[in-house]
Amino acid sequence: MSLIVQKFGGSSVADAERVMNVASIVTDTYKQGNNVVVVVSAQGDTTDDLIEKAKEINPKASKREMDMLLTAGEQMSIALLAMAIEKLGYPVVSLLGWQAGFKTNSNYSMARIKAVKTERLKKELDKKNIVIVAGFQGINKYEDLTTLGRGGSDTSAVAIAASLHADRCQIFTDVEGVYTADPRKIKGAKKLQEITYDEMLELATLGAQVLNNRSVEMAKKYNVELEVLSSLKRVPGTIVKEVATVEKMLVRGVTKDSDVARVSIIAIPDVPGIAFKVFGKLAAKGINVDIILQSVGRDGTKDITFTVARDNGEESVALIKELLSLNDNQIVCDTNVAKVSVVGAGMETHPGTASKMFEALFEVGVNIQMIATSEIKISVLINEEDADRAVAAVHKAFLPEDE
Amino acid sequence: MSLIVQKFGGSSVADAERVMNVASIVTDTYKQGNNVVVVVSAQGDTTDDLIEKAKEINPKASKREMDMLLTAGEQMSIALLAMAIEKLGYPVVSLLGWQAGFKTNSNYSMARIKAVKTERLKKELDKKNIVIVAGFQGINKYEDLTTLGRGGSDTSAVAIAASLHADRCQIFTDVEGVYTADPRKIKGAKKLQEITYDEMLELATLGAQVLNNRSVEMAKKYNVELEVLSSLKRVPGTIVKEVATVEKMLVRGVTKDSDVARVSIIAIPDVPGIAFKVFGKLAAKGINVDIILQSVGRDGTKDITFTVARDNGEESVALIKELLSLNDNQIVCDTNVAKVSVVGAGMETHPGTASKMFEALFEVGVNIQMIATSEIKISVLINEEDADRAVAAVHKAFLPEDE
Repeated sequence: MSLIVQKFGGSSVADAERVMNVASIVTDTYKQGNNVVVVVSAQGDTTDDLIEKAKEINPKASKREMDMLLTAGEQMSIALLAMAIEKLGYPVVSLLGWQAGFKTNSNYSMARIKAVKTERLKKELDKKNIVIVAGFQGINKYEDLTTLGRGGSDTSAVAIAASLHADRCQIFTDVEGVYTADPRKIKGAKKLQEITYDEMLELATLGAQVLNNRSVEMAKKYNVELEVLSSLKRVPGTIVKEVATVEKMLVRGVTKDSDVARVSIIAIPDVPGIAFKVFGKLAAKGINVDIILQSVGRDGTKDITFTVARDNGEESVALIKELLSLNDNQIVCDTNVAKVSVVGAGMETHPGTASKMFEALFEVGVNIQMIATSEIKISVLINEEDADRAVAAVHKAFLPEDE
Repeated sequence: MSLIVQKFGGSSVADAERVMNVASIVTDTYKQGNNVVVVVSAQGDTTDDLIEKAKEINPKASKREMDMLLTAGEQMSIALLAMAIEKLGYPVVSLLGWQAGFKTNSNYSMARIKAVKTERLKKELDKKNIVIVAGFQGINKYEDLTTLGRGGSDTSAVAIAASLHADRCQIFTDVEGVYTADPRKIKGAKKLQEITYDEMLELATLGAQVLNNRSVEMAKKYNVELEVLSSLKRVPGTIVKEVATVEKMLVRGVTKDSDVARVSIIAIPDVPGIAFKVFGKLAAKGINVDIILQSVGRDGTKDITFTVARDNGEESVALIKELLSLNDNQIVCDTNVAKVSVVGAGMETHPGTASKMFEALFEVGVNIQMIATSEIKISVLINEEDADRAVAAVHKAFLPEDE
């Protein structure tokens, strides 16, 4: 007998019909002789609707009370899913985050899981119950409710899988798995059978919104085998694990990330400590910097260019302007940019991946502004309007349709 | 410094504007130097909407999962009210039923409060917080959520007031207090300044839907002084306590209850044990019988007539028909009836109350079908279409407008 953890997002349980669909997936898994723990998010737009309600009353509400409000969303969805499973005639029990043993720190709205106390979960599984757990939520040492932040239900599912040593953690979404590129945009984008944790992490970071990053990190740390699959079409999905079969592919995927702003500091004095000051300041404000490029000094001055999330662009400019007493001509922010990346563990042993990418971009006339590489990824920053064309060209170069 | 418990129903917190209104009532009470604990129900139609959602998925959902679903309603309203109070700049914390210490039995959907463990409540009050508590809910020994049944938020408020020895428990509603009759229907209906627990209990039982009966019983038992008042108009309400000032009134109120059916068993053999069988059967099925009238035997037969809640009428007929093997002519159910009552602790020392009531009904041509009396109440069963006219006539007889 296996223990399977299944996670369903908000769109998978958006209405009564979809809740019944999930109930049938869950009970089919149970019928096959498995123990099943199910993690669910709030239905459809419930969380957004609740945030809207809160804003109407107090846009500056405390995070504690926001968490009290939002955790009601999953509470409703676990109860409804349990009722659907009762209707199908199977033994079931729903548990809130705290009932399922989720102990977190007190960082309301972005809490970290400290432990999952599995006594209750185990007791319910011993009773042969299908156990429905509210994702995204836990309880802190003051016995107050907390939330894990957006995408936290993935993390809840992986944490349960890790704590119970589950055989597999299935993350159901509205896509059929992880693709080599966005299948709605790139002709010939292929679903991957397997992918490594590291590759998945790079893809997630680069804007493929299939899995929450923290959940992949946790899966890697505790060696939880993940499967990303569709709640609407019952076909095998993509397995995420430590070592993936190569499938004769050099790269796993090509991604586009438009949530980028490029900040350039121009012609500042070439004295020691500037970079330290700049990036120290940004780090102190919690702004993550991605690609960094520093020009060679000339005439006693140099340029520093870096990328941040688009929302952080203006704030970064303001911070650095004040820090270095710059004028408007010395620092600019460009949000008309996008990052295109190829990801694949295979590329580190294959020389020429970078040049193959640059060639593909050159052939379709895309200008490269910045380049960053790691062991399993090459990213380029380009004009945003070129991005879709760039992804198509790079995908065609590495993953030709007929292969 | 006093400790005040305030309870607001669903209509008082139905939208953002009303939530802000409640926040201002609460903070005004706090500003006057009082400790304040606030009990709130779910917003507006939330509970009904959730029940609808559940029915769509599974009309026979377990009560445990229904309670899991419904308790989310108050969770949302306490968070929103806390946010509104934060906006006004006062220290506040919201607590779920279980966080506020509500321990109940495991009778899901109709749980009884076993204890209120007040440690957390006291801690928050010591910190000078306004404490917002989710009404209607608690937790059982399995650490599962329970609800107290409809109107349970009143009971939650009284239980907190009793446990903390509060100076007063204010129940805010959409009426200004307890009236001698329904003020929307009876010209000259007057708001009472004070009323006893027993009178309030009779009025509640008789259809004046101001206070939940269990909450009044609990208030009487623990001697909690209640005040029924309006959340929309800031004027003094009606105080409910052990001994009320008489206000020169013989009766406290005149009520109409249309939730009645009259069942008549006609010409059955006048043998011993019939009444025992009939009412034993109904009791076993959980059907409450109100007024009972048995005719004197004649020709070896007798008639038995009684009233039940309207919903129980047909079931009662079916049960007794089978029990006594009756035909359709021997048992009839009439739902075209209503019960009109006068209530007042004063009447037991004033002879002639009954005859004054009957005279008033006679003068407006209302026929009396059945009569029941207790120490503080006289009820008559009449045709439903006569009921409003009857209430007006009786009210005028006992509580003339110019008094």
